[in-house]
Amino acid sequence: MHDVIHSDLQIDVNRLSRRLAALAAIGAIEGTEGCARLALTDEDRAGRDLVVTWMRDLGLDVTIDGIGNVIAVMSTKNAAAPVMCGSHIDTVRTGGRYDGNLGVLAGLEVIETVLASNIELDRPLAVGFFTDEEGSRFQPDMLGSLVYVGGMPLEEALDIEGIDGPRVGEELERIGYAGPAPIPGFVPHAFVELHIEQGPILEVENTTIGVVTGVQGISWQEVTVTGQSNHAGTTPMSLRRDPGYVATACATFARELALEVGHPQVATVGRFQFAPNLVNVVPASATFTVDLRNTDDSILQRTEERFRAFAEETAAAQGCTIEFETLARFEPVKFDERVVDVVESVTNALGHSNNRMPSGAGHDAQMLSRVCPTAMIFTPSQNGLSHNPAEYTSPADLEAGANVLLHTMLRLANGDEIT
Amino acid sequence: MHDVIHSDLQIDVNRLSRRLAALAAIGAIEGTEGCARLALTDEDRAGRDLVVTWMRDLGLDVTIDGIGNVIAVMSTKNAAAPVMCGSHIDTVRTGGRYDGNLGVLAGLEVIETVLASNIELDRPLAVGFFTDEEGSRFQPDMLGSLVYVGGMPLEEALDIEGIDGPRVGEELERIGYAGPAPIPGFVPHAFVELHIEQGPILEVENTTIGVVTGVQGISWQEVTVTGQSNHAGTTPMSLRRDPGYVATACATFARELALEVGHPQVATVGRFQFAPNLVNVVPASATFTVDLRNTDDSILQRTEERFRAFAEETAAAQGCTIEFETLARFEPVKFDERVVDVVESVTNALGHSNNRMPSGAGHDAQMLSRVCPTAMIFTPSQNGLSHNPAEYTSPADLEAGANVLLHTMLRLANGDEIT
Repeated sequence: MHDVIHSDLQIDVNRLSRRLAALAAIGAIEGTEGCARLALTDEDRAGRDLVVTWMRDLGLDVTIDGIGNVIAVMSTKNAAAPVMCGSHIDTVRTGGRYDGNLGVLAGLEVIETVLASNIELDRPLAVGFFTDEEGSRFQPDMLGSLVYVGGMPLEEALDIEGIDGPRVGEELERIGYAGPAPIPGFVPHAFVELHIEQGPILEVENTTIGVVTGVQGISWQEVTVTGQSNHAGTTPMSLRRDPGYVATACATFARELALEVGHPQVATVGRFQFAPNLVNVVPASATFTVDLRNTDDSILQRTEERFRAFAEETAAAQGCTIEFETLARFEPVKFDERVVDVVESVTNALGHSNNRMPSGAGHDAQMLSRVCPTAMIFTPSQNGLSHNPAEYTSPADLEAGANVLLHTMLRLANGDEIT
Repeated sequence: MHDVIHSDLQIDVNRLSRRLAALAAIGAIEGTEGCARLALTDEDRAGRDLVVTWMRDLGLDVTIDGIGNVIAVMSTKNAAAPVMCGSHIDTVRTGGRYDGNLGVLAGLEVIETVLASNIELDRPLAVGFFTDEEGSRFQPDMLGSLVYVGGMPLEEALDIEGIDGPRVGEELERIGYAGPAPIPGFVPHAFVELHIEQGPILEVENTTIGVVTGVQGISWQEVTVTGQSNHAGTTPMSLRRDPGYVATACATFARELALEVGHPQVATVGRFQFAPNLVNVVPASATFTVDLRNTDDSILQRTEERFRAFAEETAAAQGCTIEFETLARFEPVKFDERVVDVVESVTNALGHSNNRMPSGAGHDAQMLSRVCPTAMIFTPSQNGLSHNPAEYTSPADLEAGANVLLHTMLRLANGDEIT
C-alpha cells in the first residue's frame, strides 16, 4: 500500500458546484436550495438528459441498460475492466442537491480532471447513475443497482407499480430510458461511491472524511397490539387491557435497549398509530414500527430477540395480543478491506482528518459490493440533515471529498492490486 | 331515615323494555341493537316526538324550554316543587339503547306506576330529558342541563355551531323544539338520575346497584413535544433529540403514576400522533393527550403536577421543547349526602346488592346538583361497554334500577325531609 499520492492533480470545486446547482435547478423546490426529482418522472428525465449531455460532452461512451441505469466509460482501446464510481440522481420529494447527485457529478469531475491531464491509466475510469435509489416512487429502494448486479430479474423490476399507478417498465419507455445494455451489467474492477454522510457524526467530530467500512444491517418491524377499548373515566386501571400502554412501553424500551447494547446499535420508533385515537377512550389497538440497525448481524439478531421478548411479556401482562410483521430485513454489508485501506491511505496522504465509520443508510455501493471490491467515501452533512431541501455540505468539504475520490480511483486504476 | 319502603309498588319491566326497544328503533343501526340519534337531527326529533307522545298519554304537563329541554310533571293542584328524574335521549353516532334513554323511560315508568296506584304524594313527580348531553354534534356536552341551571346564557348556547355546520338555535327551530318555557328552569325539590354505569365495576363485583356519590374531576391535556427529525440509520442515539421517546415515556409514566396514586385515580393516553410518522425517521414532533380523573380535586391536582414535572424533566433531558394545552378541566362533583343515603337505604330495603361509587363519566345530574339536592343510581353495563351498539343491561338489572328509582322518588316526595 502506497502512502503517497500519484500526482498533485486536483478537481475544480467551482465547476463541480456549478454542475450541482444546474442539476438542482431541475425540479427545484421554490424558495429552497432543494429539489424533487422522483424516479422516472418528467423531472428525472430532464435531470438524466442534462447529465448524459455532460457525459457525452466529455467524449465518454454512454450506455443505458434495461432498468435505465446510465454508465459512462472513458473511451479507450484498453479492454481492462474499468474502475467505476457513481451513485444516483433521483431524489425524495423533499430532496436536497447533494444526496446521490454528489457521487455522480464528482465522478464526472474526476474524469474531466483526468482527461485534461496527461496521466496514463492502466484501466479506464467510469461513472454511472442507478435508477430509483430512493425508493420514494417504486419499492424497493436501490432498485437499479440491485438489478444491475443480478439481484432481481429485469422483468420483475419492470413490473413494479409506482405509488402513483404506472409501472417501472411503462415509465422507462415513456421517458426514453429503457436502454439496450445487458442486465446484469459488466463487472467493474472496483467501485467507489462518494456520498454525503446524511448524519451528524463527521460534523460533531469535526472530521472531513468518513472512510466507510460497510453498511449497517437493518431490521424493520411493524408491531400491532390489540386490547380492549374502554371508557377513560369509568374503567379502573386494574380492569384495563390497554394496548396503548404496551406500545408506549415497548417504544421506551427500544431506546433503553439500544443505549444498553451500545454504539453503533440504533433503535427508532418512527411511526405510531392508535385506534380509535380519542382523548377519552382507552385504545382498542396500537400500531408502531421499530427500526433496529447494527453493523454486527449477531448483535442485531440478539437485539431483535430481546425487543420481541420484552414486547411479548408486556403485552401478556396487560392481557393484550401482539403481532409482529417484518417490513424489511437486510444483513450488514462489509466493504472490501483493500479498497477501504486505499480510501484511508489517500485521505491521509491528502492531509484530511478522517474516521472509519459504517453507513447507517443503504446505498448503491452495497449492491455493487456483491460483485466487485467496493467502498464508500463520506463528506459531512451540516446539522446531519438529509432528505431535506436544507441539506448542505460546504465547498471545502465537497472539494476534499472529490479529491479523495479522484486519487482513490487513480490508485485503483494504476497499480494497487486489489484482485 | 327510614329503612323500610313505603309500599310494595313495583314497576313493569316488560313495559319499560318495550319502550326502550321502540325508542331504539328510531335511528336504529342496522344489524345491531344500537341506534344513532345525534342531538337535534331528524332522528332526534322523531325520538323526542315519541317520548313526548308517551308523556302526554299519561296526562302529564309537558313543557319545552328555549334550549329544547322537555320536562313532564304530574298534573296536580299541589304547588310544591316536584321531585324530578331524567336524563337524555340523544346518542353518540355508535350509540346503545340504554345510555340516557334508560333514565328517561324508567322515569316515565315510575310515573305510570304511581299514577296507576292509589298512593298520595306530598309533592308531584317529574321526568325530563335534556338536550345534547353527548356533545357529539354540539360542544360542550351536557349542554341542555347546563343551560337549564343557568350555567350558560341561552343566547350563547343557541349560537353554538355543530360539527356539520348548523347552529343549535337553527336546528331547534327546524325540528320544532325551541319552546317557550323559561331559562333557567324551575328548581326541583330533588333530582335523581338512573343511568347505566358505562364501566365494568358493578359487573366485576357482581353488584346490582351503584349508589353514586358524585362525579370524578376531569383533566384533559394535550401535550406537544418538539425535537429534531433525523435519519434513523445515520443518527447515533447520543446525538438524538427524539420527541417520540419523550412522548412514549410520558405515556408509560402516566399509567404508573395512576397505579401509584391508587384507585379511583385513572390516567388514559388515548390519542397519539407522530410527525412525519415514517418508519425510518426520528420524529420531528409528537403530540398526545392525557386524561386524568379523580374524585378528590387536591389529589387530582397533585397528579397533574407530578405528570407535568416528569414530562418537563424528560423533555429537557432529551433536548426537546414541550407544551401543555388544557383541553378540559372539571372539578369533582359531590352529590347530596342525604339523597345518596335515601338511594342506599331504598336499595338495601329492596334487597339489592350495592356499592357506593363515583361516576367516571359526566352526567346531566351533575348540572342539576348545582341547584338542588341530587344523586344518581347506576345499573351494570355488560362487559363495561357503552357508546357501542353492543351496550347491554339485563332485564333483571333494569327492573332493579327502575324500582330503586321508584322508591327513592316516593321517599323524596313523601316524608324524607332533605331541605
